[in-house]
Amino acid sequence: MAIRETGIIRNKEQMRNWTRSMRAQGKTIGLVPTMGYLHQGHLSLIAEARKHAQLIVVSIYVNPGQFSANEDLSTYPSDFQGDIEKLQSTPDGVDVVFNPYNMYDYGEERERSGGKKREKEEGVVSCLEDERGGGFGHETWIRVEGLEKGMCGKSRPVFFRGVATVVAKLFNIIEPDVAVFGKKDYQQWRIIQRMVRDLDFAVKVIGSEMIRDKDGLAMSSRNVHLSPREREQIQTVMFFCDIYKNHMRARHLSISRSLFEAKKGKNICSELRRSVIESIEAAGGKIDYVEIVDQESLEAINDEEITRGGGGGVVICVAAWFGKVRLIDNMEIDVLQHS
Amino acid sequence: MAIRETGIIRNKEQMRNWTRSMRAQGKTIGLVPTMGYLHQGHLSLIAEARKHAQLIVVSIYVNPGQFSANEDLSTYPSDFQGDIEKLQSTPDGVDVVFNPYNMYDYGEERERSGGKKREKEEGVVSCLEDERGGGFGHETWIRVEGLEKGMCGKSRPVFFRGVATVVAKLFNIIEPDVAVFGKKDYQQWRIIQRMVRDLDFAVKVIGSEMIRDKDGLAMSSRNVHLSPREREQIQTVMFFCDIYKNHMRARHLSISRSLFEAKKGKNICSELRRSVIESIEAAGGKIDYVEIVDQESLEAINDEEITRGGGGGVVICVAAWFGKVRLIDNMEIDVLQHS
Repeated sequence: MAIRETGIIRNKEQMRNWTRSMRAQGKTIGLVPTMGYLHQGHLSLIAEARKHAQLIVVSIYVNPGQFSANEDLSTYPSDFQGDIEKLQSTPDGVDVVFNPYNMYDYGEERERSGGKKREKEEGVVSCLEDERGGGFGHETWIRVEGLEKGMCGKSRPVFFRGVATVVAKLFNIIEPDVAVFGKKDYQQWRIIQRMVRDLDFAVKVIGSEMIRDKDGLAMSSRNVHLSPREREQIQTVMFFCDIYKNHMRARHLSISRSLFEAKKGKNICSELRRSVIESIEAAGGKIDYVEIVDQESLEAINDEEITRGGGGGVVICVAAWFGKVRLIDNMEIDVLQHS
Repeated sequence: MAIRETGIIRNKEQMRNWTRSMRAQGKTIGLVPTMGYLHQGHLSLIAEARKHAQLIVVSIYVNPGQFSANEDLSTYPSDFQGDIEKLQSTPDGVDVVFNPYNMYDYGEERERSGGKKREKEEGVVSCLEDERGGGFGHETWIRVEGLEKGMCGKSRPVFFRGVATVVAKLFNIIEPDVAVFGKKDYQQWRIIQRMVRDLDFAVKVIGSEMIRDKDGLAMSSRNVHLSPREREQIQTVMFFCDIYKNHMRARHLSISRSLFEAKKGKNICSELRRSVIESIEAAGGKIDYVEIVDQESLEAINDEEITRGGGGGVVICVAAWFGKVRLIDNMEIDVLQHS
């Protein structure tokens, strides 16, 4: 198949016009939101999007709204030219790269709305840059109040409101039919899914399976910051996780209800959690959290609930620091439904 | 002109399909969101919408998300049949009335997403009704964090998050080109305008002038709850406001910069505020707030700022209780720009 010419659009209005003209021709649009520094994981999201839509938009935008002042916005890796080359060399390519300069720039809007004018003010109003006050900066935030509370939301208090808000903006600008999110960012995926349901966005959200490097490490743009030593240590954890995954499968997927009954009170969750923590710490990691939660509600599952084997699946979510890099990972474990 | 046949749509999907089929025919859509019990004020919003769009959707939905437990959701007046008759007898009528049963019902969605299933659960998940917990209820809220803080936001803490959220839902379902809001609900109008800017909604927000009854009372569905005695008392306030408005015009619109300079230190805002308070109290009202604020940022304007005559206009916003009815009103005052 011929490689598509990738158009680069930086302007919100042009982006929306493109979608609308394509939709008028009966085309469906798939969106893959990214912060750039693309890797195989991103490319797998694009491949997934292709299954659901005729035209693909990849957004590349490092969203300042989801970083706290003490987080790694300034060192977040970027390589726009490299990203474009990667996109052009993937099968089918993509149709548009949406790469806005500043998603929080409402300079024109302010002039139009006829509010207070300040002679020396620039057109840019950003949630991070507008510290002069005056009530004209970005101030609208979307919160998915339950799902954002635990796990990454605990240690990164503005993270998910920033993610939900920028994704809503992208949805309103690009107006896609489908958007693909990686299940590597599990909590993020569930939050976006819930936001779309609760705000009635006309977008189908697809969760795409995680891609791991050969050594088992979940692909992430932040991996580039890991030292070879750290990388090697992490390998141990990942290897451990794989073992544990198989172990859990044996325990929960293949065994009968009677066995479940017999296991009651065996503290499966607590045991699993403790083992994962020990393993990460042995590999030199500093635990942020290890949680075993319901796949959809992200509420903690206790030993009794897991041995009841009730309802949906669970997911083990992990965040840990290796040096200055904070990594996240997770494993879904589908608990057998007994009749 | 012939009166249009008004279609009634209660289903979100059907509503969106209608807009999309109309847009595919090149039509533009105007939305007038209401909570029903329509009066002349609503009809003026519809007339305004007609100026900006070819087809008009009026939504009628009493949004539980914007009422606190102690507020008047249960006594909010309603007369759906009367509303339809009023709409059909207006010039041009309207094209669609969107009247959903429950905007927070995600029963189908939950089944699709494959989460925990609960045998005895009904399809309805409402922010107000879902107190069983479990993490499946509506939990996504939009906050316009600066503008929602003062005035009505102070005394009604969940009001504006409820309004912003339901309006975002309506925008996503109806996908209008234009939406018209009454300037009677001044803070609400500014919040929606800001939300649309900050979240990049493809909707043009129009603020429509307030409509007053013959006695000067701003039209509101809640006026029906006023006793004749209360109604009469309020008349006094409104009459006063009109005088004051003219007074302010004289003071601020028609006078020269030199006069402004001379007035410095004369406590114009404080005087005005005190007079309005006294007048409302004399009419038997119990003040919630009287604020003089910048028209766009809704930040309090002080005496020095108003005598500087700088930049945009100001607005006096008032909320007061008359018996069990809480009424709001406001007056825009455009301050002369001096060169």
